[in-house]
Amino acid sequence: MVAADASGARRVTAEVPAPKALVFDTFGTVVDWRSSVAAEVQQLARGKGLTVDAAKFADAWRAGYGPSMNRVRTGELPWTKLDDLHRMTLDRILPEFNITGLTEDEKATLNHAWHRLKPWPDAVAGLTRLKKKFIIAPLSNGNISLMTELAKFGGLPWDCILGAELARHYKPDREVYQSAADFLDLKPADVMMVAAHLGDLRAAKGVGLRTAFVTRPLEYGPGGRADLKPDASVDVSAKDFNDLASQLGA
Amino acid sequence: MVAADASGARRVTAEVPAPKALVFDTFGTVVDWRSSVAAEVQQLARGKGLTVDAAKFADAWRAGYGPSMNRVRTGELPWTKLDDLHRMTLDRILPEFNITGLTEDEKATLNHAWHRLKPWPDAVAGLTRLKKKFIIAPLSNGNISLMTELAKFGGLPWDCILGAELARHYKPDREVYQSAADFLDLKPADVMMVAAHLGDLRAAKGVGLRTAFVTRPLEYGPGGRADLKPDASVDVSAKDFNDLASQLGA
Repeated sequence: MVAADASGARRVTAEVPAPKALVFDTFGTVVDWRSSVAAEVQQLARGKGLTVDAAKFADAWRAGYGPSMNRVRTGELPWTKLDDLHRMTLDRILPEFNITGLTEDEKATLNHAWHRLKPWPDAVAGLTRLKKKFIIAPLSNGNISLMTELAKFGGLPWDCILGAELARHYKPDREVYQSAADFLDLKPADVMMVAAHLGDLRAAKGVGLRTAFVTRPLEYGPGGRADLKPDASVDVSAKDFNDLASQLGA
Repeated sequence: MVAADASGARRVTAEVPAPKALVFDTFGTVVDWRSSVAAEVQQLARGKGLTVDAAKFADAWRAGYGPSMNRVRTGELPWTKLDDLHRMTLDRILPEFNITGLTEDEKATLNHAWHRLKPWPDAVAGLTRLKKKFIIAPLSNGNISLMTELAKFGGLPWDCILGAELARHYKPDREVYQSAADFLDLKPADVMMVAAHLGDLRAAKGVGLRTAFVTRPLEYGPGGRADLKPDASVDVSAKDFNDLASQLGA
């Protein structure tokens, strides 16, 4: 049974069996991509004696994310891993920000800024609690090597790594959500998608996964356009991963 | 540079860059499948008032492993995950051991004995050391859900889970070894295969991976046919995972 609380979010109550696995959107939900990427851009620019609006650079890079995946989704590009899509966008925006003369090594290192993103302050503690009760795995558009290095960088205690590269589809394609249930040998209803993005949760819900919304008000910076209120696709709404762990009894 | 030691094994010396990732055969190399499966069979039989040679049952079950994967490898069966191959073998041998009248739930639970295999005594400590210096992942014929539950059961601290289900090929098909390098975005020479089985290491070497041999003399029980001496396919030879960690400077 699912009951509505004051905020309109529905909470899983004792009558509903707990999910067996929690799968997590990662960029924005688990890690703070914007300030992490901006810090690396800032450091590189300083070393080169350049002046760059690093936060604007991070935003421009991230703005290429959806459109570049859509090129794969529509078949314009064959399957291309996110590292390579990130690189295509990087190569386009570097001259737009007047960053020129980087060596190939410098560009490759900068592209891997996405492998070195800081977890939100509650993420590791919350995941560590949740791991005791549930299988926990990322279900991200990031490729396996990216997600693996990200986990090592931030100490994210995943049980396994799932996501777009295994399904060879990008979220919000339904194949990605279905693949999580299939690889874990679970019914979709035994899997709960955790994300700060309602679009991700709506797509997961469409495949039969349960959903948990975690707010990340600063994902896009102060004054950014983060989702702040759950909608009808949301089963559980939490303010961070520790709150989610408490609500799920972990 | 690689130097021969007294046992004939070659050791990676300081002139050779260290590998970046270690991938592990799992059944027999990381976990003791034989005594673990036998213990579950013994417990089930006792509860049913049956007398079964549990070690012989475990051996018979494992004897179905290679032939059942060969049915996939030759195309006789479509891609079939190891849990399902285990179940086919189980259904065949239960009557051979006069174990009858099990419910579907009991058979399903017994089949998942392969998700509850005890790590060898040095495995978790050795992996924990190796994880500080290298990416560590299983490269097993076990499917993702099996490997995920096995890791939770035994506390195996993998960074990610690779293997047959991702490659949709069973070892020793070269596609499995190549897939480890591809998913990790590494050259094959930057990946080291760790196994107690020379056949696995020879196949890995054929794809360009480096190799570490770890002896598990009791894998097949006292008097079993474990590989005990490295051959020419072996770059590093170790007596257990702690020894391997020491030799690799972890």
